[in-house]
Amino acid sequence: MSTSQKIEIDPIGFVKRSSSNENERDRSLVSKIVLKKEFAKGLDGIEEWSHVYVIFWMHKISDKEKMLIHPGGGRNVGIFATRAPIHPNPIGLTLVELVKPEENVLWVRGLNALNDTPVLDIKPYPDWENRKLLVVNNFRTPKW
Amino acid sequence: MSTSQKIEIDPIGFVKRSSSNENERDRSLVSKIVLKKEFAKGLDGIEEWSHVYVIFWMHKISDKEKMLIHPGGGRNVGIFATRAPIHPNPIGLTLVELVKPEENVLWVRGLNALNDTPVLDIKPYPDWENRKLLVVNNFRTPKW
Repeated sequence: MSTSQKIEIDPIGFVKRSSSNENERDRSLVSKIVLKKEFAKGLDGIEEWSHVYVIFWMHKISDKEKMLIHPGGGRNVGIFATRAPIHPNPIGLTLVELVKPEENVLWVRGLNALNDTPVLDIKPYPDWENRKLLVVNNFRTPKW
Repeated sequence: MSTSQKIEIDPIGFVKRSSSNENERDRSLVSKIVLKKEFAKGLDGIEEWSHVYVIFWMHKISDKEKMLIHPGGGRNVGIFATRAPIHPNPIGLTLVELVKPEENVLWVRGLNALNDTPVLDIKPYPDWENRKLLVVNNFRTPKW
């Protein structure tokens, strides 16, 4: 694959909030991910997980050229060192609580995405390899 | 955004392994993410995190139509209920240990991606909101 080749992604579905002016940062709110009908079968058994990752496309973000931001504390920080939405690819990644699947709809709690946000993928939490769960509890975070 | 509109993504860089036939499932191995030069600044300060998520595009996956797989244990399971790579959008999501940044290169340990895999985004772990870290330790997983 050449470095100039673009990747085309077809969303698997869209976020539907109960109101389009809900505060999407309120993680106690429940919202729906409405998958395209042909993907309904792909949700079979998902209710056995309590949490899933939702990978989405922040379609309202336009400032993709910025490389540094100010998280506070007086220093500039690279955008890959923050969770600021202004990334070259405005991909959202949120770990949400699974409420219930219903045909082609997945109800989740804590999805900080706007109404109509395109959803790219859904994955169970946590990751694993060789039948071993990979949960990271011993981590370091910056002071800023 | 209409449901038929595709999203175009330009990779921010590519995975470079020390050898193209390394076993990418060996999570003890170190690999490089070589970002495009213009994104080097975006890594500023990232070394203050011990772990980051890498979001990548599994360019060798072709079977995107399958909706059910057999994880063992005798039942079929929807692909969104598994970490199998055959998803409609073959997006990889791996939490890796950050080794070091070096100009436009990020060295990481545990990235289960093939050599030359396009990388879409990098995000620090864990997520947070309102200055509170969001780490999920109380979760449920299936028996299969």
